[in-house]
Amino acid sequence: MSTAQSQQVVVEATAKPQLAPFKFFEAMSAYQQTSALKAAIDLDLFSAIAESSGTAAEVAERIGAPERGVRALCDFLVVRAFLNKTLDRSGSRYSLTPDSAMFLDKKSPAYLGTATRFLASETVTKAFRNLAEVVRSGGPLPCDVRSDKEDEMWVEFARSMAPVMFIVAQQAAKLFAPDSEIKVLDIAAGHGMFGIQVAQHNAKAKIVALDWPSVLAIAKENAERFQVAGRYSLLPGNALEVPVGNNYDGVIVANFLHHMDRAAIRAFLKKMHAAMAPKGRIVVVEFAPNEDRVSPPIPASFVLNMFANTPGGDAYSFSEYQEMLRAAGFSSCEVCSLPPTPQLAIVGVKE
Amino acid sequence: MSTAQSQQVVVEATAKPQLAPFKFFEAMSAYQQTSALKAAIDLDLFSAIAESSGTAAEVAERIGAPERGVRALCDFLVVRAFLNKTLDRSGSRYSLTPDSAMFLDKKSPAYLGTATRFLASETVTKAFRNLAEVVRSGGPLPCDVRSDKEDEMWVEFARSMAPVMFIVAQQAAKLFAPDSEIKVLDIAAGHGMFGIQVAQHNAKAKIVALDWPSVLAIAKENAERFQVAGRYSLLPGNALEVPVGNNYDGVIVANFLHHMDRAAIRAFLKKMHAAMAPKGRIVVVEFAPNEDRVSPPIPASFVLNMFANTPGGDAYSFSEYQEMLRAAGFSSCEVCSLPPTPQLAIVGVKE
Repeated sequence: MSTAQSQQVVVEATAKPQLAPFKFFEAMSAYQQTSALKAAIDLDLFSAIAESSGTAAEVAERIGAPERGVRALCDFLVVRAFLNKTLDRSGSRYSLTPDSAMFLDKKSPAYLGTATRFLASETVTKAFRNLAEVVRSGGPLPCDVRSDKEDEMWVEFARSMAPVMFIVAQQAAKLFAPDSEIKVLDIAAGHGMFGIQVAQHNAKAKIVALDWPSVLAIAKENAERFQVAGRYSLLPGNALEVPVGNNYDGVIVANFLHHMDRAAIRAFLKKMHAAMAPKGRIVVVEFAPNEDRVSPPIPASFVLNMFANTPGGDAYSFSEYQEMLRAAGFSSCEVCSLPPTPQLAIVGVKE
Repeated sequence: MSTAQSQQVVVEATAKPQLAPFKFFEAMSAYQQTSALKAAIDLDLFSAIAESSGTAAEVAERIGAPERGVRALCDFLVVRAFLNKTLDRSGSRYSLTPDSAMFLDKKSPAYLGTATRFLASETVTKAFRNLAEVVRSGGPLPCDVRSDKEDEMWVEFARSMAPVMFIVAQQAAKLFAPDSEIKVLDIAAGHGMFGIQVAQHNAKAKIVALDWPSVLAIAKENAERFQVAGRYSLLPGNALEVPVGNNYDGVIVANFLHHMDRAAIRAFLKKMHAAMAPKGRIVVVEFAPNEDRVSPPIPASFVLNMFANTPGGDAYSFSEYQEMLRAAGFSSCEVCSLPPTPQLAIVGVKE
């Protein structure tokens, strides 16, 4: 029992080895982090802080909410490093961290607050509400299965997730040749960001974006916004069923294979191999954990998401992707990190 | 763009300064930590691992669930440091961390898995489901207000939270004299653990436990279990209203004041002061953040919880508690840490 005077008290709250019951308490409260960040985005709190002097009173006035809750929410976001707080004689002020200024202020071109509409959607989150039951039943409950049909969910994905994937797409695009006439197929294009970035990286590249028609409408808008619409064509349909044509110099398959089981992936990769020209490159972008399947944290955690939300999907390790690419006839199959993102690219070449 | 061969790939997924959009992605996925831990407890996964060789197949058989989901859930819990995973030629095995062995194996006397029944309850969590609306309205929505009446919620609290509070209570008890005839009032006793630990620490102490009758039934059971029932009496009622008697040598107020506003706390502390004998000690146990209100993480995060779930409560800083105790007539008002817990005790003396 240690005793200390007022200002000198130090609570060893973060000394993990000793924190036993409260480590449990923290995990049981982790959902509050999601709720707090979503609430701040819904209230446009970050933009209000950016536009103001950052006092709780001023922020509260801007977002039209009483000060007490604004202060509580801001302090919580400081704890989680989404905001800074400075204290001086005149009181306390909140300000945006560099990350929040870039990604959570609506005025920033990289604003990604829209992504909560997908990430916090009923469709994405519901399987986690009774995860024990999902584990017992060996996968998604019949009422929770994500449709593999054209679905409002994927329209929402296309509308809201582009900013999260922008940096990944920018890095992945560099895996294609920068200055040659190539035809690149973007599988399950969604927001279109991956193909669009290839078109921006290589001014001679022509992109064929494959997805359901309602989703392609969004990809097309984005292609126009990024001024590559002239080299951007649409191939509507289900990626597993529609004839894709042939002679592609490149194929990009981003965050698509994790929805499928190994057999389906192998069949799909063979179809891609057949559609490609000699020397063509396939770039698979994925949350691919290490062989141990428990590192790094983000890709490793994604496994449970795929278990809970797809009938046979998984976050396969990068060596499994290499193996599946080789089985489909590709060679090389290099693994490339895409810093600063937690995603990987596995790059196969058709000899 | 860095390129690496299979086993050597290092993804800088945890390098925070660069991780911008994925830091957001992680917070938006934080609710999955709560879901995964709750699911593992509901499935009694930790006990199954403790009793088995730890292969996914054996664990799956024990809990009666297919292996794929068990493996996904276990890997997720390894990422979050609730399990260890070892890999050798014969495959992979899961084992309990020292923390999990102590707190999450049902055979352990310190098992605290029951606490999910309170921490994950509808009553505790619902305000976080639409937190933006709660912030806008300046506090809990009418439909979300926690009752200050006798309530099934506090019975569930008393039933399930004792193991989480056991260590806190054990440490707080040491703030009372170890070997003298003292009469100690335990305010809103709940599971009774705080008073019971005082009785265990001091074999001459007599405890008066105050709470609603249905809650006291549980405290009484615990007093019997800890063999202090002979020195344990019950005072049924609302702590703010019931006459408590007088001449107490000690009063313990654990995790109670945070439900109230400052005026109510001041009035309540005056009532306690009047009920105490000269030289009596009041021990207030709380989640009390530092003056900056953004550290340490657990007490600072508790502020938002109180904002969302009580009409006027808060996690007051320890200096605010000191000030309120002094205003009620107490002197000394030392702050004591209660390692290894993130809670603090503020100890006042009636001169």
